[in-house]
Amino acid sequence: MKVKLEDVAKRAEVSPTTVSRVLNNRGYISEQTRKKVEKAIEELNYYPNDIARSLFKKRTNFIGLVLPTINNPFFSELALYIENICSDLGYKVILCNSLMQIDKEKAYARMLIGHQVDGIIVCTYNRGVEAYKNPKLPIVAIDHYLSPTIPVVGSDNYAGGRMAVQHLIDQGCRSIIHINGPIELETPTQMRRKAYEDLIDNPITYELINLFDEEYTAVSIRQILKKHPETDGIFASDDLIAATCLKVANELNIQVPDQLKIVGYDGTETVLRLLPQLTTIKQPIQEIAKTSVSKLMNLIENPDCDEALETFLPIELVINETT
Amino acid sequence: MKVKLEDVAKRAEVSPTTVSRVLNNRGYISEQTRKKVEKAIEELNYYPNDIARSLFKKRTNFIGLVLPTINNPFFSELALYIENICSDLGYKVILCNSLMQIDKEKAYARMLIGHQVDGIIVCTYNRGVEAYKNPKLPIVAIDHYLSPTIPVVGSDNYAGGRMAVQHLIDQGCRSIIHINGPIELETPTQMRRKAYEDLIDNPITYELINLFDEEYTAVSIRQILKKHPETDGIFASDDLIAATCLKVANELNIQVPDQLKIVGYDGTETVLRLLPQLTTIKQPIQEIAKTSVSKLMNLIENPDCDEALETFLPIELVINETT
Repeated sequence: MKVKLEDVAKRAEVSPTTVSRVLNNRGYISEQTRKKVEKAIEELNYYPNDIARSLFKKRTNFIGLVLPTINNPFFSELALYIENICSDLGYKVILCNSLMQIDKEKAYARMLIGHQVDGIIVCTYNRGVEAYKNPKLPIVAIDHYLSPTIPVVGSDNYAGGRMAVQHLIDQGCRSIIHINGPIELETPTQMRRKAYEDLIDNPITYELINLFDEEYTAVSIRQILKKHPETDGIFASDDLIAATCLKVANELNIQVPDQLKIVGYDGTETVLRLLPQLTTIKQPIQEIAKTSVSKLMNLIENPDCDEALETFLPIELVINETT
Repeated sequence: MKVKLEDVAKRAEVSPTTVSRVLNNRGYISEQTRKKVEKAIEELNYYPNDIARSLFKKRTNFIGLVLPTINNPFFSELALYIENICSDLGYKVILCNSLMQIDKEKAYARMLIGHQVDGIIVCTYNRGVEAYKNPKLPIVAIDHYLSPTIPVVGSDNYAGGRMAVQHLIDQGCRSIIHINGPIELETPTQMRRKAYEDLIDNPITYELINLFDEEYTAVSIRQILKKHPETDGIFASDDLIAATCLKVANELNIQVPDQLKIVGYDGTETVLRLLPQLTTIKQPIQEIAKTSVSKLMNLIENPDCDEALETFLPIELVINETT
């Protein structure tokens, strides 16, 4: 016979409400009571039928997380924090890798809505996903303008861009170029470009069409450095581009930092572990995750609440051997 | 009024069965028909209520993916492939980061079962999660023995270990040490250690208790190199450990590869992009993902099928500048 919530309550010698609180991570429960309930759950092998429960509650406790690709140090660190915060709040995260393909992203959006997720966090660059425009659906975007009414959370990209370029100037660079993604992507990260162009008299910005293709990135950087041999500073809009700049400079026997200085952007744990010599602008990834989830929870609990539409968190310059 | 599946069929001028096939990614559908149905779905803003549907079907099309942490190049690459393959098959992936904490993993297992996932892929090292022992629940483990009846998929760790150590010997190394995780973790990766100990006369293996703490890893490696200044070769059981060996060697002014040669293990895209000088054993991560998902699907479709209990896929030595 199927074990019921009441059986767990009886075994743990608590009320059914207390068992329900432990299961839902809601309200105050002493450590001792929690342990008693968890022990009873294990001993009885009790599994709440969450699907039937969600039909009853009109809440699924599912959150969709849509990324370009989890196989990228920035998104994987962000996803770790988001998932762990959601898990502590009793929410489950459905992972979606859009691979920058609009059709794939549309299908994910439809799937998430079909599963009645309580909300979605979107970190992709695709516009034109109609499903996101449903005003009843709580959505928060990270580093990406989705629609005029959807809150965006990110780092202070303009200040980060200024800090990176000013650091190169202070280190004596006179011919600084900037490498970024396509300008058509209307992301707040374009503010990194704007900061560069505001600070430099004759700015030279290169756009990489496919940000996630290393081969293409390396070929492009080789051409850029050959066309502009006077370059003595590069501000790359992310650390992976910066890493490829360093690799190409090594191949071309350009000494870093003596002949060429490089600053990246993101400062993830993975990059700082694998490439500890890289100077970079460190984003507050954990804070971005916390703020995004907290905004999303507010929208879920109170759909009419007035969330600030733009939140940009402070960044930090981490100086290492590439400058 | 709520749009129904029949409305979509009418608008697309196809049968309701065809619409259902498109929604479920089942059966043959021509590209033209799929486009027509998708257009009708968008125009009518149709969302199938997947929760009610899953109660009816007794299948949720959810897969749980339990990892130590997604913020690690090996697991993020694996997760990308697993999620994308599942998505193509019409399955959604619930991401769970256990952070190597047994209580967290038990809670995830209970949650996944409560949500009636159709199956779970487990890549963590925790034993003793009772929920995994439910014989009715399809589970596949990656690089990790969960129970005598659960299939394990991984790379050929013994061959990989031999290849790494033989390469160091061939390059002239005479004092080769091995750095691995705790031997208590009964993972197939311990075969990397066995290969080293079989090949070397007086093996010196160091165990790092906390594989994911870089600070601790660096301190340990500094002590190892000071205690064994004769060391001229290191076989590290993963690339992150190898990266820290390289960093510590640089700090101690030990020339790599002249005085010390280093071989890692994993060969992820991220590591080869950020640390292209690292010699490593490349795992077939995409194949591991494909094989795991395909085994899981077989177990879901046919719970009594006889899946091979161990599948170890071929590895490859990638020689770069650290040897």
